Amino acid sequence: MNQGEFEFIDKIKSLFQAPQGYVGIGDDCAIIPNESGSETLVSTDMLVEGSHFLREDITPYQLGWKSAAVNFSDIAAMGGSPVGSFLALALPKDLPDAWLDEFMRGYKDISERYGFPLLGGDTTASKDRICICVTVLGRCEVGSTLLRGGARPGDVICVTGNLGDSGLGLDAVLKRVSEGVEPDENAMALVERHYFPYPRVNEGRMLAHTEGVHAMMDISDGIASDLRHILEASQVGAIVDVWQLPISQEARRYCGNYGMSVYEKALCGGEDYELLFTMDAEAEKCLEIPHYVIGKIVEDKDSGLFFANLPDELDQESFIGFRHF
Amino acid sequence: MNQGEFEFIDKIKSLFQAPQGYVGIGDDCAIIPNESGSETLVSTDMLVEGSHFLREDITPYQLGWKSAAVNFSDIAAMGGSPVGSFLALALPKDLPDAWLDEFMRGYKDISERYGFPLLGGDTTASKDRICICVTVLGRCEVGSTLLRGGARPGDVICVTGNLGDSGLGLDAVLKRVSEGVEPDENAMALVERHYFPYPRVNEGRMLAHTEGVHAMMDISDGIASDLRHILEASQVGAIVDVWQLPISQEARRYCGNYGMSVYEKALCGGEDYELLFTMDAEAEKCLEIPHYVIGKIVEDKDSGLFFANLPDELDQESFIGFRHF
Repeated sequence: MNQGEFEFIDKIKSLFQAPQGYVGIGDDCAIIPNESGSETLVSTDMLVEGSHFLREDITPYQLGWKSAAVNFSDIAAMGGSPVGSFLALALPKDLPDAWLDEFMRGYKDISERYGFPLLGGDTTASKDRICICVTVLGRCEVGSTLLRGGARPGDVICVTGNLGDSGLGLDAVLKRVSEGVEPDENAMALVERHYFPYPRVNEGRMLAHTEGVHAMMDISDGIASDLRHILEASQVGAIVDVWQLPISQEARRYCGNYGMSVYEKALCGGEDYELLFTMDAEAEKCLEIPHYVIGKIVEDKDSGLFFANLPDELDQESFIGFRHF
Repeated sequence: MNQGEFEFIDKIKSLFQAPQGYVGIGDDCAIIPNESGSETLVSTDMLVEGSHFLREDITPYQLGWKSAAVNFSDIAAMGGSPVGSFLALALPKDLPDAWLDEFMRGYKDISERYGFPLLGGDTTASKDRICICVTVLGRCEVGSTLLRGGARPGDVICVTGNLGDSGLGLDAVLKRVSEGVEPDENAMALVERHYFPYPRVNEGRMLAHTEGVHAMMDISDGIASDLRHILEASQVGAIVDVWQLPISQEARRYCGNYGMSVYEKALCGGEDYELLFTMDAEAEKCLEIPHYVIGKIVEDKDSGLFFANLPDELDQESFIGFRHF
């Protein structure tokens, strides 16, 4: 970096104007006005070079976009409206200024698209790896949020989009980096899906205001893991019909090419950032938000999560989803 | 680490109970009720192993304490009341469970002392270095915050406590780590000051409700740098009387031992986490919060920051304070 810390902060400040009535970047804290009858939603996520991304593969623009996207998805998962975000960066000294500019451009583009202004943050030095921590704030009316603990027996289980694409995109990235296999056009579509998630902010807000929706979360570790959080919090069981999982043509083709199980990837691949929700079966028939019904909630919590129509080569027990450690 | 991610999160959850009416750790976001007539304060800070702390020197308890302290200090600097904090951790796989437990114990102790419950966070893996990002939320009545831009000509400039101790403590740490010089009792007091900052949360809140206080911030990079932020934001100049700087006996003794300038350290040493504020000179005479007057604000903003009684060996221009890059 040739630019100094304060020059970089000034540059960021010029990119993000604080909304009317707010104090944004440049003081000890940001100040956010509260609306009466509302609650504040907060979530935070950390991305570390080498663990969550490879600097030599992801473009800085994509990384800026994705760092924000995974956080906006948490606000979506509660059905909240955007308030703003905070960005903490630890940066190695050898990072080119152009890299940082591109990173901030990606961050700005997604922030504007979804209406989350950057309100503050921290910039500091790192010895070698880039470390990014985004904290996002949202707002909702009192009592309107959709938590994980609301699922009821008889509910249908739904998702807002294809499962497994992002996990397969990561697979293609790793093949490129470690084995030198350049992704073909089909694989590149999956890599795009991995690097450019589109959080379901609008869908989440609409679902939070839809009669009969009982529980919701975003899919970050794969539904085999994420749905279990809903089951535990709601004290219920579930049956998921593997044949009903929405799977893209690209995912099927990629798995065919490499002899992988597309169902396994759809259940356990992480970072889809689609919404997973449960709702009244009757109400679902009138739901206009695009979605797929993949199973149902059952009363018997001891039965846990059962997969119907699971191919023989897969094992009920083996699906625990992604864990960081 | 032997414990898995979810076990560790469960352990943290058992340490921190969400206050009545809140949703804390365990869903996609935390939910914080808003009070009418109030504003939310948010600040975030990142600490990276090797840049901000040395794992072999700081104890995990101290690190847990300090990670929270530096953030609480930002709420103090605005005169806010505590709401809660969010803790994101990237952890190398070889980190002992006992280390993590001690880290969380330090974090919990300071959180309880100052009334900031932990409301959420993120735990993830890092290849080698520990990375910590804390986001803190506070609350204040609408319009009661003390920003950096309020200083007025004629104001006296005050600080809440000794300057330079923490920077000298870091010097002693570096001597221990790189030269093997064990700190004596005097130096250990400074190391303590470096590793156990006590943020001025109560003082900050009281100052925000004191008539005649115009601008405030916390001292994290040394007043030579930090006071400049107030001057720029307020479009004023300042004269600081170096003889009036509050300096501890330990700092004087340490600098005497090593032939260092104690004034330089008091002006440029970072991480004191005392409050720096400007206020009406008449009102200051009645101020009951312990403080030291170190200078005054002048109208001429082009004169910048002038140091009176600066020893000959020091140069007016050389004081720019600590920069991360």
